[in-house]
Amino acid sequence: MLEFIDLTKTISKSDYQAVIDGLEARLGECQRAAQAAGVPVVLVFEGWDAAGKGEVINSLAQVLDPRGFGVRVILRPNEEERYRPWMWRFWNQLPPAGKIALFDHSWYGRVLRERIDGEVSDADCREAYEEIRQFERQLVDFGAVLVKFWLHIDRKEQKKRFRKLENDSATGWRVGDDEWQQNRRYDDWLVATEEMLEETSAAHSPWVIVEATQRKFVEVKVTETIVVAVEKALERRAAAPEPVYAPMPKPQESPTHERTVLDQFDMNLSLDRDDYDRQLDELQQRLFRLEHELYVARIPAVVLYEGWDAAGKGGNIKRLTRGLDPRGYEVVPVGPPTEEEKRRPYLWRFWRNLPKAGHIAIFDRSWYGRVLVERVEGFCTEEEWRRAYREITEFERQMTDFGTVLIKFWLQIDQEEQLRRFQAREDDPEKKWKITADDWRNREKWDQYRVSVVDMLQRTSTAHAPWTVLEANDKLYARIKALRTVAEALERAVG
Amino acid sequence: MLEFIDLTKTISKSDYQAVIDGLEARLGECQRAAQAAGVPVVLVFEGWDAAGKGEVINSLAQVLDPRGFGVRVILRPNEEERYRPWMWRFWNQLPPAGKIALFDHSWYGRVLRERIDGEVSDADCREAYEEIRQFERQLVDFGAVLVKFWLHIDRKEQKKRFRKLENDSATGWRVGDDEWQQNRRYDDWLVATEEMLEETSAAHSPWVIVEATQRKFVEVKVTETIVVAVEKALERRAAAPEPVYAPMPKPQESPTHERTVLDQFDMNLSLDRDDYDRQLDELQQRLFRLEHELYVARIPAVVLYEGWDAAGKGGNIKRLTRGLDPRGYEVVPVGPPTEEEKRRPYLWRFWRNLPKAGHIAIFDRSWYGRVLVERVEGFCTEEEWRRAYREITEFERQMTDFGTVLIKFWLQIDQEEQLRRFQAREDDPEKKWKITADDWRNREKWDQYRVSVVDMLQRTSTAHAPWTVLEANDKLYARIKALRTVAEALERAVG
Repeated sequence: MLEFIDLTKTISKSDYQAVIDGLEARLGECQRAAQAAGVPVVLVFEGWDAAGKGEVINSLAQVLDPRGFGVRVILRPNEEERYRPWMWRFWNQLPPAGKIALFDHSWYGRVLRERIDGEVSDADCREAYEEIRQFERQLVDFGAVLVKFWLHIDRKEQKKRFRKLENDSATGWRVGDDEWQQNRRYDDWLVATEEMLEETSAAHSPWVIVEATQRKFVEVKVTETIVVAVEKALERRAAAPEPVYAPMPKPQESPTHERTVLDQFDMNLSLDRDDYDRQLDELQQRLFRLEHELYVARIPAVVLYEGWDAAGKGGNIKRLTRGLDPRGYEVVPVGPPTEEEKRRPYLWRFWRNLPKAGHIAIFDRSWYGRVLVERVEGFCTEEEWRRAYREITEFERQMTDFGTVLIKFWLQIDQEEQLRRFQAREDDPEKKWKITADDWRNREKWDQYRVSVVDMLQRTSTAHAPWTVLEANDKLYARIKALRTVAEALERAVG
Repeated sequence: MLEFIDLTKTISKSDYQAVIDGLEARLGECQRAAQAAGVPVVLVFEGWDAAGKGEVINSLAQVLDPRGFGVRVILRPNEEERYRPWMWRFWNQLPPAGKIALFDHSWYGRVLRERIDGEVSDADCREAYEEIRQFERQLVDFGAVLVKFWLHIDRKEQKKRFRKLENDSATGWRVGDDEWQQNRRYDDWLVATEEMLEETSAAHSPWVIVEATQRKFVEVKVTETIVVAVEKALERRAAAPEPVYAPMPKPQESPTHERTVLDQFDMNLSLDRDDYDRQLDELQQRLFRLEHELYVARIPAVVLYEGWDAAGKGGNIKRLTRGLDPRGYEVVPVGPPTEEEKRRPYLWRFWRNLPKAGHIAIFDRSWYGRVLVERVEGFCTEEEWRRAYREITEFERQMTDFGTVLIKFWLQIDQEEQLRRFQAREDDPEKKWKITADDWRNREKWDQYRVSVVDMLQRTSTAHAPWTVLEANDKLYARIKALRTVAEALERAVG
């Protein structure tokens, strides 16, 4: 692939001068237009050492409005980062809608330096490709412009540049063992690079190979590529139909969906108080011990709760946490996204809240809001919630591949039981605060929620992240089943 | 002080049972009421190893709604944290309004373990006390409830508990060298603790000494203390007059403030284009070199820009950054606070954006918004902007004490020059986007801004963080003066 790159390409001074001012003006205009349209722009710079990444980032920085872009320098991961799935730090560094991020090195370190240095196995490398593709697709689906540059020079040119840098006291520090090693192992790098280009070039996130022999040429090609990509994205956006935010209509009655999988659970399952007390006590002690073992083994765990209103999520979580040391877990309540969160791809806020290895995060509601309340209420477009099933399974897969214990609970109650609980809450002055007009409104949409819940269970109960349905008409039964499920999963994890 | 603590205090089982349910119910009610009122609650747990911090945090966690609190376990700072002023990580971990944070260890590690282990000099320790007082005062002024517990046991009791823990295989890991060392050096710890209690007890943030011999006693005393503190705070808040958000009235005309310090600057200072080009080039090269030296020396720098609309902040920042390597700086544009930011003390968002040691943060507008636009427009109360002068000087002092190079620019233009620029922008199709109705509205409040600017300069130009006024009627002059000021400050810093 790269052998067909013409590294003799240059641009004459007069050609450069004829185009550069116009390109820079367009780039400035692109930045303002992207800001106005709320389009995030992600620019990735990879390439050979001394190929001129720093210089071209510099030249862009001189043209861009400094208030609207940030440079992300990607070095080796720090401890906080190593204790999370490896894409975590890149999610964390995504620019908000309207801003530009320039990545000096990027997530591709995983399949280049880390791989060549033997820090990443071949299997992990294959996995990394897949995760990179998922990440980039999610970015682009969100509306981001993503352009990836590979600055290419040949081995001789690199050697020449290293020598020149070394001979200048102001730049000598830039050439160390790592750099010389790359030159010596140029061919290994070449193989890895070609594979990377092949594995991660997609129509929505193409690699642009930049012949990097001459600085002016690089500057023009990179600037032009960015300008064209942003202009096109803005045109597409302008031409796209207005997004439609429509609540889900009531499903038509039909014998084909009169019964759903939700009707197959035995809603009469129950537990008497003595049994409950005994088992609860035993399970809480077991969980306390397991929490510590999890910490020692540095295994992260995520437990998420979804369920009908008044199904008993809060009380269930409380029984789970009551046995735990609060230093080892965190409860993450999930409500409507904030403005800051809306300016990033949907899963961003959940990535940010992933637990550190050795800790437990308990989500009270979760990323499934997208395919439940957001779908039913029309808070997102149809395209967005349809896309979400895949995004979610990818997200969960990345978690479990990292070794996260992931447990997903759906608290199932039937419609009559919900009514009884709503009424009981209204009648109890101490519990009245728990029930709001929203709850009654949601209840009227029971049928829409039912369809959404069934879709969710069917599409997102995967081998690596199955759903556990808790039969919750009897709260005691549901609590014990939840705690037992968690305890058994943790036991399997700590071996 | 501590010798008068009665460590024989206990509570009988019947007394415990008589009060604990009531206290727990009140605690639950407090949590909901604090959430509803938007009051953040910060609980600090310090004390002797094995005094029962973990147990009491556990017992609180069992009562509190897990969705509304978080436990912060404070260990040794990681690299990200060590590269910022030491209070940075505690600012980062503040709970939002309405939530509860329980600190298992806290900022007091600085004056206890770190001090006793000799990681902090006596001078730094004195400074730490001052910074702790400032931090806690700012928290409480924001409306937070802050309660600090010292769990006290004597040396013999500690030794007994260590032995017991060691003899149980499930808890043996909790007693290591650090713990035994504390027991051996109990008296050193005692001296440091007493000093800490003395230095950091204030009416708004008292220390509560908890006689920690008996677990039940600790549980009752701690719960009761929290309940009373939150209830009182909520009462005070309910009784407080509604906050007033009123725009600043136009100042009365009077010969005493006809002229201000702003009229003393020579607004005719200018530079011709050739001179400018030559100096700009020289300064940018110098700054490029200095940026690298700053990085090597791991010195952080903060440059902030304030000034009249159209005074040329953007262009000035652009000339400053144009010479720099974008990997070493970040421009932080400051706009109105987000919802998330409003739920924390005012300076929180600026703390979060402090640069890592070795990097430069350039603020395009800054924390001075509080005493400028927020004061003039009535976006904050009078009490809030009045308090801000002190909060800001404290904040800046903590930065500079850490070694941060802090440069503050006020871009001064006169009223006629602003009018000329507004009109020129309106007439230029390429610059029209730069001017909005807001700019014209702000201009009508020139007199109010003038008073605010003068107050700001007078109150916040301190020895460690002086203001530099840039005479900006001539943009070229202002740019060169800014770049020179930065270059000279960085040169002094890198020695």
